[in-house]
Amino acid sequence: MHALGRHIIAELYGCDKEVLNNRELIEKIMVESALKAGAEVREVAFHKFSPQGVSGVVVISESHLTIHTWPELGYAAVDVFTCGERVDPWQACNYITEMLKASHMTTTEVKRGLFEQPVKVANL
Amino acid sequence: MHALGRHIIAELYGCDKEVLNNRELIEKIMVESALKAGAEVREVAFHKFSPQGVSGVVVISESHLTIHTWPELGYAAVDVFTCGERVDPWQACNYITEMLKASHMTTTEVKRGLFEQPVKVANL
Repeated sequence: MHALGRHIIAELYGCDKEVLNNRELIEKIMVESALKAGAEVREVAFHKFSPQGVSGVVVISESHLTIHTWPELGYAAVDVFTCGERVDPWQACNYITEMLKASHMTTTEVKRGLFEQPVKVANL
Repeated sequence: MHALGRHIIAELYGCDKEVLNNRELIEKIMVESALKAGAEVREVAFHKFSPQGVSGVVVISESHLTIHTWPELGYAAVDVFTCGERVDPWQACNYITEMLKASHMTTTEVKRGLFEQPVKVANL
């Protein structure tokens, strides 16, 4: 089977609470991680919750990155979904993990868009 | 274990190609699906690719919904990630599946943010 994309589901625990609650910094880390993976950034939308927590997404030509943070728990839910061979989602994931100073994590890689034959798509 | 959220990963095949390539309609379907699930919409960002395909995200108070479409394959990769008990991600997922006229699909539900004790968080 041939997959259109790879989707990393990352659970980051024991993160730096100050970082998790800083919208500007989280946005910068997520955009930077996309660029480090070799992705092309298309749309960026981040939101700061009251009294705490940040949610955000970076839409890339190759799919998306998302993050939701719970500073009070030191936890962040991160998704990195990339299509094509040119971009490596693990580069983004590892960078985010490092910048959030996670003490432990679990990850799952899911293949998305499975087709029996190799598929030629227009955008990649 | 207690989970902060539920994340549905949906692979939709055999979808209506006209719908998949219509940015305005895809955005409308995704926002409407979030509202049907009882979610509060915070940010919306959609992008139309040339020559075809739509990517987009709806950031909700309860996490996010994303979609990436490949009209040429009749395929859409959909994620519905919701936190808290008040919102039902399956309502959103089922609505999207219906509107995209998917002929077949596979779904996986992943629990996000597992903690041994029930956690009280500020936003939900």
